[in-house]
Amino acid sequence: MVHTPIIILVEPQLAENIGAVARAMGNCNLNKLRLVKPRDGWPNQSAYAMASGADPILDYADVFSTLEHALADLNYVYATTARHREMVRLTYTPHAAARDMYNLTQNNQKIGIVFGPERTGLSNDHVSLCHATISVPLNPKFSSLNLAQAVLLVGYEWYQISHTTLEHELVTNKTSLAEHKEVLNFFIYLEKQLIDKGFLENQQKRSLMIRNIRNIFQRSNLTEQDVSTLYGIVKFLSEDKKQ
Amino acid sequence: MVHTPIIILVEPQLAENIGAVARAMGNCNLNKLRLVKPRDGWPNQSAYAMASGADPILDYADVFSTLEHALADLNYVYATTARHREMVRLTYTPHAAARDMYNLTQNNQKIGIVFGPERTGLSNDHVSLCHATISVPLNPKFSSLNLAQAVLLVGYEWYQISHTTLEHELVTNKTSLAEHKEVLNFFIYLEKQLIDKGFLENQQKRSLMIRNIRNIFQRSNLTEQDVSTLYGIVKFLSEDKKQ
Repeated sequence: MVHTPIIILVEPQLAENIGAVARAMGNCNLNKLRLVKPRDGWPNQSAYAMASGADPILDYADVFSTLEHALADLNYVYATTARHREMVRLTYTPHAAARDMYNLTQNNQKIGIVFGPERTGLSNDHVSLCHATISVPLNPKFSSLNLAQAVLLVGYEWYQISHTTLEHELVTNKTSLAEHKEVLNFFIYLEKQLIDKGFLENQQKRSLMIRNIRNIFQRSNLTEQDVSTLYGIVKFLSEDKKQ
Repeated sequence: MVHTPIIILVEPQLAENIGAVARAMGNCNLNKLRLVKPRDGWPNQSAYAMASGADPILDYADVFSTLEHALADLNYVYATTARHREMVRLTYTPHAAARDMYNLTQNNQKIGIVFGPERTGLSNDHVSLCHATISVPLNPKFSSLNLAQAVLLVGYEWYQISHTTLEHELVTNKTSLAEHKEVLNFFIYLEKQLIDKGFLENQQKRSLMIRNIRNIFQRSNLTEQDVSTLYGIVKFLSEDKKQ
């Protein structure tokens, strides 16, 4: 079964924008929408007024209290950002990302594309939960896109690629990419071990350091097997030496 | 002199939409706008309210009484349409049209891209004034795009072709990707710690396991900073717990 990418809106402010996003999704044959803490509550009639008939997308939207929960069952997640971050990350154009997504979905992976709140975009903490970043190359002197337009451009490239022939094959492995919750649990385990051992003692630097560490591993596209290997590494390293 | 394509709106109904078009044009570094018989008159404050600061595009918009007049000084003109017409015409995707436009502008040709009224789109008479047609490939069951979104998609493809962009780039900020020998030294250090702790005891599986572990980290494109972070992690985890 081929999954189409899931659009995830983090703390969208205006319900109208959620409706406009649903319309853009309908244009691009995307139909799975997740909402993390929509400001104006959900469901919301103002969203339907802007959806131009893409009502089923709104009817079936799932609501989550945190981004972590919204990502729990996904295998590979893209953060969309307008600006460069002080983080080491793989950044795609929508075109390159679409090619990538298409290969992943052909291999039965569940993909998410995360969009931040209208005014601020995604926080660095949100971004570091994702594997890679999508930035739309646009006029740097005038790059403000509204939410629905950002969704439309990413969805447009997805549509172009998913409705034509495959350009290149993905290297298929036996194991699947890990689900997000498995990776997150590993992060939490690793961070706990590090704190126990006194590694993250500087409180001010701790959250920055945790983000850097998460970024290192998110760039690896960890499989289930990899996560289990990493657990083994941390577990063995953490144990006191046998005498 | 290289001309950038001119956006021409035929009988736009809502001034707000003209403003949203100007914003989308700004995103794509297009700055020449022509209006044919805008329904709500021109200039119009409602347009400025939706332009998100793309005011100069509105300030310099030219108004015409007919499409023929608006096209008079242009060399090559595309009509944008949502549906197939009962006409034999050359029809481009936005991507193919952008490549074409780029070649034409490099040869000093003045290009126009014509968009119809919100509700009806261009009439067949309008279309037949143009040299070729652009149709955006989108979900045929849900292809209604608003005016600004149609301009955005065509402008986006123009921007991609006229501004060379890397398809994907690794944003590394201040630090460089680590030299291979630094990474290798880290691997050796990690593996020694693991062997000391009894993790890689099965000799037969050891080399396979080492390869898997190295693959995890090699996929991360480690920077110098990352390698130093990873040393820190392994060092702290390996130390016997403080009492």
